Amino acid sequence: MPLLDPPLLTLLTDFGTADYYVAAVKGVVLSLAPRARIVDLGHDIAPGDVLAASFLLAAVAPLYPPGTVHLAVVDPGVGSARRILLVERDRSLYLAPDNGLLTPLLTAAETRSVERPDLHREAPGQTFHGRDRFAPIAAALLGGALPASLGPVITDPVRIERPAPHHQGREIHGHVVHVDRFGNLVTDIPASWLDSGVYRVGVAGHETGLAVGHYAELPPDAAGYLAGSLGTVELALCGASLALAWDVHRGAAVRIERMVLSD
Amino acid sequence: MPLLDPPLLTLLTDFGTADYYVAAVKGVVLSLAPRARIVDLGHDIAPGDVLAASFLLAAVAPLYPPGTVHLAVVDPGVGSARRILLVERDRSLYLAPDNGLLTPLLTAAETRSVERPDLHREAPGQTFHGRDRFAPIAAALLGGALPASLGPVITDPVRIERPAPHHQGREIHGHVVHVDRFGNLVTDIPASWLDSGVYRVGVAGHETGLAVGHYAELPPDAAGYLAGSLGTVELALCGASLALAWDVHRGAAVRIERMVLSD
Amino acid sequence: MPLLDPPLLTLLTDFGTADYYVAAVKGVVLSLAPRARIVDLGHDIAPGDVLAASFLLAAVAPLYPPGTVHLAVVDPGVGSARRILLVERDRSLYLAPDNGLLTPLLTAAETRSVERPDLHREAPGQTFHGRDRFAPIAAALLGGALPASLGPVITDPVRIERPAPHHQGREIHGHVVHVDRFGNLVTDIPASWLDSGVYRVGVAGHETGLAVGHYAELPPDAAGYLAGSLGTVELALCGASLALAWDVHRGAAVRIERMVLSD
Repeated sequence: MPLLDPPLLTLLTDFGTADYYVAAVKGVVLSLAPRARIVDLGHDIAPGDVLAASFLLAAVAPLYPPGTVHLAVVDPGVGSARRILLVERDRSLYLAPDNGLLTPLLTAAETRSVERPDLHREAPGQTFHGRDRFAPIAAALLGGALPASLGPVITDPVRIERPAPHHQGREIHGHVVHVDRFGNLVTDIPASWLDSGVYRVGVAGHETGLAVGHYAELPPDAAGYLAGSLGTVELALCGASLALAWDVHRGAAVRIERMVLSD
Repeated sequence: MPLLDPPLLTLLTDFGTADYYVAAVKGVVLSLAPRARIVDLGHDIAPGDVLAASFLLAAVAPLYPPGTVHLAVVDPGVGSARRILLVERDRSLYLAPDNGLLTPLLTAAETRSVERPDLHREAPGQTFHGRDRFAPIAAALLGGALPASLGPVITDPVRIERPAPHHQGREIHGHVVHVDRFGNLVTDIPASWLDSGVYRVGVAGHETGLAVGHYAELPPDAAGYLAGSLGTVELALCGASLALAWDVHRGAAVRIERMVLSD
Repeated sequence: MPLLDPPLLTLLTDFGTADYYVAAVKGVVLSLAPRARIVDLGHDIAPGDVLAASFLLAAVAPLYPPGTVHLAVVDPGVGSARRILLVERDRSLYLAPDNGLLTPLLTAAETRSVERPDLHREAPGQTFHGRDRFAPIAAALLGGALPASLGPVITDPVRIERPAPHHQGREIHGHVVHVDRFGNLVTDIPASWLDSGVYRVGVAGHETGLAVGHYAELPPDAAGYLAGSLGTVELALCGASLALAWDVHRGAAVRIERMVLSD
């Protein structure tokens, strides 16, 4: 798998931006792979929120050029015996703790358990594998180390099982999988499941029958639904947060009903 | 217009840093312009706050080297028929929705409407032009595309009209155009309009007659005014937020009165 | 001191990420040193919190490759007569206001006062030395300027004196020097001062006798202590904030008592 030149690393953590943790990881990477370019995917994942990290990584990783190394460290089990996974997929590499974070990226992928203690940094404590293990392993990959040299293929990575959206008679059932900064409700229901018919979309005791193509089509204070940027049904207000207005959080159940026009 | 080598892109959005939006834009840019360097101007603009983005971009863009491509996506009208503007000014390029964001940069500039649907990414939905339109257009520019190849010159970009500071007898009238992280009140009144005389500067029912050169000259709990970093009059406390103390927000009217020393 | 190629600058400020300040500093650096790479160490230091900046910089700077230029601007005295320090240490360079920020890095270092007004940018006001002085000086260093050309060696930099952890009979006394994003309490007490004996660790009227190796070993709701990532004693809950649970802030006194097992 040819790397980019200079090699490209993305970094996703729940370290926040006020601590020394992100800067420490970057320092180790740059010391070992001095030409590397590092792009932040984000560090404001809520502490320990593996699911949110998983969602973000899966949403953006396919947009990066082949040869990119993706490092994701949301790792509540740091220091324990949990494995470190290296996944090769679509000619890019993914490095993360074996806690389900990489679940959406495990299909059509080769998954390894990294077993190279010789790469670990000598360091005090067992609480910062981002700096002491993930960073040097990522640097090795950026320097051209072959995945096969890092550890054996495994077939039992931890997966986060999530309920799949499904049809039930005239209804579609799914969930809110993300609430974005604007308060839009991103669901897991493929927008392609809806045709040009009339639907009612309900969540958390509220509902809307207003279909639009983009936010600015929404009248003031009127909730509507549209095809979102990940190809799934999204609910929104224009210029305000629907999540606040309806008090909806990630995980809320979503029900879509196709209306039959009576005569 | 020669680009930098490697080409340099700045990125300013209201996407926040907890969502996948910024990382998505960067992924598309790097896939299409793999050598590009990307500098974040900021992503913590309040959702849809075109005015704040406009202020920030105008404050820093002139500091960047000629050949920089600046991409600003604060785009409440995403998906609608609003145009995409490309502005060439001082040998740098600016790409943004046609919603007034680029207003301060339109003087002595050539403004085009980008009309190259062939550059758009195939993508679900119409809600993420940052990823699907702005990013590939920016990448084309980073790759050397000439502005003239992207669309025709236009003369009617959307402008945000703002009241100009002005003299009125012995008074100067202006506004708070920015409240910074430290709670300093940045006004639009040129510091050069004040001479060495004695002034009273009032905002929101409070006033100060204390002129200083820098923050540390201010006594504890005493508000003062000074020449700020954009060359305009600024009001401040030392070590505390004047915006909080006086409950002042962006847009507040500012009145400066020259005192006549009576005998 | 050979620089990296391309040269590497780290940037640490209290400017936040919503203002134009960080972007302005980067613009000036890139205009004067167009090939420079800039890595953010962080900008979410609380306004004027020199101590927090000092802690962060000392925690990460040694991890960066020799030849790195580190620029730290937390500068409540901006515009005053305070000096600008340039410190050379372990073949890396540190630039910061002379306010104690560099205290932990002054040992085994050569410290200079930068006295090169010819490098300052012409600029309105005296409130933004980050843009007008620090950035061009940093750019000069990135361009290969020798420290000796920037100003004379000095021996009296401002230092922040902090109480050192110490033994007192069977007790160890120290302080909480950092509360991290996860609510862990980082102390200044070397973990190596504790042997395999049984200890009670107390802070803010609470205490724990539970020693663990990593967070995931902690039972729910049970506070424990461990060797943290800086080699000092750290107190933590698993999956929750001990700082919140115990209402502990930076600076809190920590007492560790070795228990004598009676028969």
